[in-house]
Amino acid sequence: MLGAPLSAHGNRSPHVTSVRALPPPDTKTPATGSSRTPLQDTYGIITPSGLHFERHHSGVPDIDPATHELLIHGLVEQPLVYKLEDLKRFPSVSRIHFVECSGNGRSEYSGNLGANPATSHGLASCSEWTGVPVKLLLAEAKVKPEAKWVIAEGGDACRLTRSVPLAKLLDDALIVYGQNGEPIRPEQGYPMRLLLPGWEGNINTKWLRRLNVTDGPAMTEHETAYYTDLLPDGKARQFSFELEAKSVITRPAGGQKMPGGAGTYEITGLAWSGRGKIQRVEISVDDGKSWKDAELQQAGFTKAFTRFRMPWTWDGGAASLQSRATDDTGYMQPTADEMLAARGRNYSYHNNQIKVWYVRADGSVSHVAQGV
Amino acid sequence: MLGAPLSAHGNRSPHVTSVRALPPPDTKTPATGSSRTPLQDTYGIITPSGLHFERHHSGVPDIDPATHELLIHGLVEQPLVYKLEDLKRFPSVSRIHFVECSGNGRSEYSGNLGANPATSHGLASCSEWTGVPVKLLLAEAKVKPEAKWVIAEGGDACRLTRSVPLAKLLDDALIVYGQNGEPIRPEQGYPMRLLLPGWEGNINTKWLRRLNVTDGPAMTEHETAYYTDLLPDGKARQFSFELEAKSVITRPAGGQKMPGGAGTYEITGLAWSGRGKIQRVEISVDDGKSWKDAELQQAGFTKAFTRFRMPWTWDGGAASLQSRATDDTGYMQPTADEMLAARGRNYSYHNNQIKVWYVRADGSVSHVAQGV
Repeated sequence: MLGAPLSAHGNRSPHVTSVRALPPPDTKTPATGSSRTPLQDTYGIITPSGLHFERHHSGVPDIDPATHELLIHGLVEQPLVYKLEDLKRFPSVSRIHFVECSGNGRSEYSGNLGANPATSHGLASCSEWTGVPVKLLLAEAKVKPEAKWVIAEGGDACRLTRSVPLAKLLDDALIVYGQNGEPIRPEQGYPMRLLLPGWEGNINTKWLRRLNVTDGPAMTEHETAYYTDLLPDGKARQFSFELEAKSVITRPAGGQKMPGGAGTYEITGLAWSGRGKIQRVEISVDDGKSWKDAELQQAGFTKAFTRFRMPWTWDGGAASLQSRATDDTGYMQPTADEMLAARGRNYSYHNNQIKVWYVRADGSVSHVAQGV
Repeated sequence: MLGAPLSAHGNRSPHVTSVRALPPPDTKTPATGSSRTPLQDTYGIITPSGLHFERHHSGVPDIDPATHELLIHGLVEQPLVYKLEDLKRFPSVSRIHFVECSGNGRSEYSGNLGANPATSHGLASCSEWTGVPVKLLLAEAKVKPEAKWVIAEGGDACRLTRSVPLAKLLDDALIVYGQNGEPIRPEQGYPMRLLLPGWEGNINTKWLRRLNVTDGPAMTEHETAYYTDLLPDGKARQFSFELEAKSVITRPAGGQKMPGGAGTYEITGLAWSGRGKIQRVEISVDDGKSWKDAELQQAGFTKAFTRFRMPWTWDGGAASLQSRATDDTGYMQPTADEMLAARGRNYSYHNNQIKVWYVRADGSVSHVAQGV
């Protein structure tokens, strides 16, 4: 029997049913939450754009690129307005970077452990982004000497606004319009977003419409009431942008069932760091008593997912699987206990503690040990 | 107004309408042709899976991975049958590679020039592929000493079959089940295909169901009646697997209109080679009189798309734009005249000649020069 004909645009096989993990369906504000990438279903380091995590504060706007404008003004000699087609005339770059919400793993910090890689670590995704270096646009606008910050404003209903140090924008920041070969998806900021590689997701302003160059931060809602870190002494740490080294085993992982009995399997997962490249990932299958180096693939990218892999011979009994990443600054992921001792109970953002999965003798894999 | 709520699986913006280039709609056999990637609409090096080119000989089968089996037999000590879940227990690798039909640019060879990058070069796409090295499976099957070839059979209606030298399968060949982070798409062979990096698309058997280890090629229809190269003396060259260095400017390119008048634009495009890495891409804007090095990005990958870019100041007059790629074997793309002199008129597959686009004074870009 002849198969299906050629088509103008392809879709997944009907046998592929992987979806983003959504909040409970009875939420009154489905436009203001987050959905999570099913990391356990992904291969390699690219996240399929249809499964990239979402975090919205007032939903996904429908923006016509023909009318969308980016305004650059404030402490500049030459205020500028760009449309998407204008940006494409500038020298462009493509880079593979992860984006992660600083709240990824937040509930884990208080002991409410995610049952699978989506619910524990799914507020992180990785794409090939294409766009124009922000420094080129700021050079056109001629930033004044007293400028130190830039206030970035999104085109969503809440006009989400964050203050960005000028130094980051002059470093590796991009205004991106491409994601995994095509225009960025609506949920990731179509037609253009700010990309600040390695920095917490919230400040990577989506649906970007304005860059206001200033001499100080704007102290907006999303950098005062939220996205700050409460310290043990009751004071809050603000502007904690950089995401630390982190990793999670995606297979075998919580919610899965070993597809056979005792024998050889592959342990695989993802590691990333907002500070640079992943240098090393170690895996323990014995409650952290011993560690062995995993093989790294696509480790050449800075501030990107790195896929790690290690063959594992399962003896058919209970086992605990955990990974710890070290980045090229020498920083190693802490254990949950180490993190609690260092940060105290009030902290919750930027949780990068080691994640443990428990393989049980019946082949099921869980986020809690047998009998717990 | 609040935007759209969270969703389980995301789609493109309704403002994004890019599609594969299809054959004329009146074809009687829509299951047996090819559709082409709109390279002019892509960013970076990853081709969106929904726009990956298609080439089918009997359509796209709908295969349930729960029942699909891969048989490895013939000159082996231990015939084996694997399901998808079995393959996932083996050590996996992810690599970015292009796939190109050897007929890409075939009509260009006879002077029927493609009017845009899709119709001229769109039978090539690039993905992050994940799978298991074939050599690991052949090691399990214990190949006999007299084995020299492997007959690969697809699970489509025509059971498309090609003979593969054993040496390639023991080198960098993969059986892939992942594409750009998700299961490979039906049009690319779901649930599993053979990937022979750098070799003509047809032999990268899709919907792979059988590897028959033999001591000689099978001389199948698709390596005798098709996919051979007729030489000037009337003899046919067979088993010309490797794809040569090639490039195409994707913007500005045929079918486009310069988005403004005289001024600075970016010239960008894609280069690739089946022999290794792209080492250099040069661009000429003056009918090939002078050449300038373009900037290469993601050039670290072997047998993968490499994105090239160069700023260009358009004076508003007529101009011809062309690119030529050199790979790390030192091989450089030939001109159309050089290729004709070397291969003669009968040849048509493996056309990697330099492609020229013509910018006209009215801002339109064409595959033919003004007045031609």
